[in-house]
Amino acid sequence: MEENVQKAIQDEYPDEFAWCYGCGRLNEAGHHFRTGWHGDKTRTIYRPLPEHMAIPGFVYGGLIASLIDCHGTGSAALALHRKNGHEVGDGAEPPRFVTASLNVDFVRPTPNDVALIAVGTIHEVHPKKWKIETEVFANDTLCARGEVVAVVMPSTFTTKG
Amino acid sequence: MEENVQKAIQDEYPDEFAWCYGCGRLNEAGHHFRTGWHGDKTRTIYRPLPEHMAIPGFVYGGLIASLIDCHGTGSAALALHRKNGHEVGDGAEPPRFVTASLNVDFVRPTPNDVALIAVGTIHEVHPKKWKIETEVFANDTLCARGEVVAVVMPSTFTTKG
Repeated sequence: MEENVQKAIQDEYPDEFAWCYGCGRLNEAGHHFRTGWHGDKTRTIYRPLPEHMAIPGFVYGGLIASLIDCHGTGSAALALHRKNGHEVGDGAEPPRFVTASLNVDFVRPTPNDVALIAVGTIHEVHPKKWKIETEVFANDTLCARGEVVAVVMPSTFTTKG
Repeated sequence: MEENVQKAIQDEYPDEFAWCYGCGRLNEAGHHFRTGWHGDKTRTIYRPLPEHMAIPGFVYGGLIASLIDCHGTGSAALALHRKNGHEVGDGAEPPRFVTASLNVDFVRPTPNDVALIAVGTIHEVHPKKWKIETEVFANDTLCARGEVVAVVMPSTFTTKG
């Protein structure tokens, strides 16, 4: 199974939106989640660090939630970008989404010594609101299911309150 | 508003369960979330680090999800410990919970230059299953709502698959 996402939407975000601890390429301390197409699904692949444990050997829930969250917003951006006639790498600036809601079902303990693969199925609610159903696999075993509702980043995002 | 939880359930976990990146006191790289009673509610207080951003100035969703998650399992442990006749600090080993499901609604952008306060309301589903409704505040403003269903850690947790 391929271990890298070749063309990731996060590679295309403008610099000012590339600082997310989960998926920002410019955040040196962060996870650098990268999300791309894989057929009509989306994929994010991430190998947890040893410290990302719940108990030794297993991933803590917050990392899985973060993976599903950023995978969801990235998947929505991929989908709207494609709907707008663009693909990653064509030079067009992609849309940027924020998460309205995040649901995670932890199906079984997730080992932290292998790459996790998040696989997303995308549903358009309306052009500015998308729902992404995600399954997270470790060693081809389903470990978590998630759902993200992502909305196009409002211009008010940077105004507090 | 007090800025520290005085008696936290995570201080009482046995060493082998004190490694969680979110709430384990022995995980040097982690967040060290600490959860205690505050009246009949529970509380976890955490000041994000600068790198925990979505965009500069605002907390990324994964941190909020992780806070709600560990606050939920800690709150469930506090509640069952009390139901069993114990309080933090009395020397008894508390029960340990894992998360079955986690839901987060992101109400508004969350500033990352202040302490976040997670406030939990606990509901017993049955003795081994608890639901925790959590509100996350920054500067007394509600920024996120969450719900965790936590179950007593099964003995199979450490067997993969």
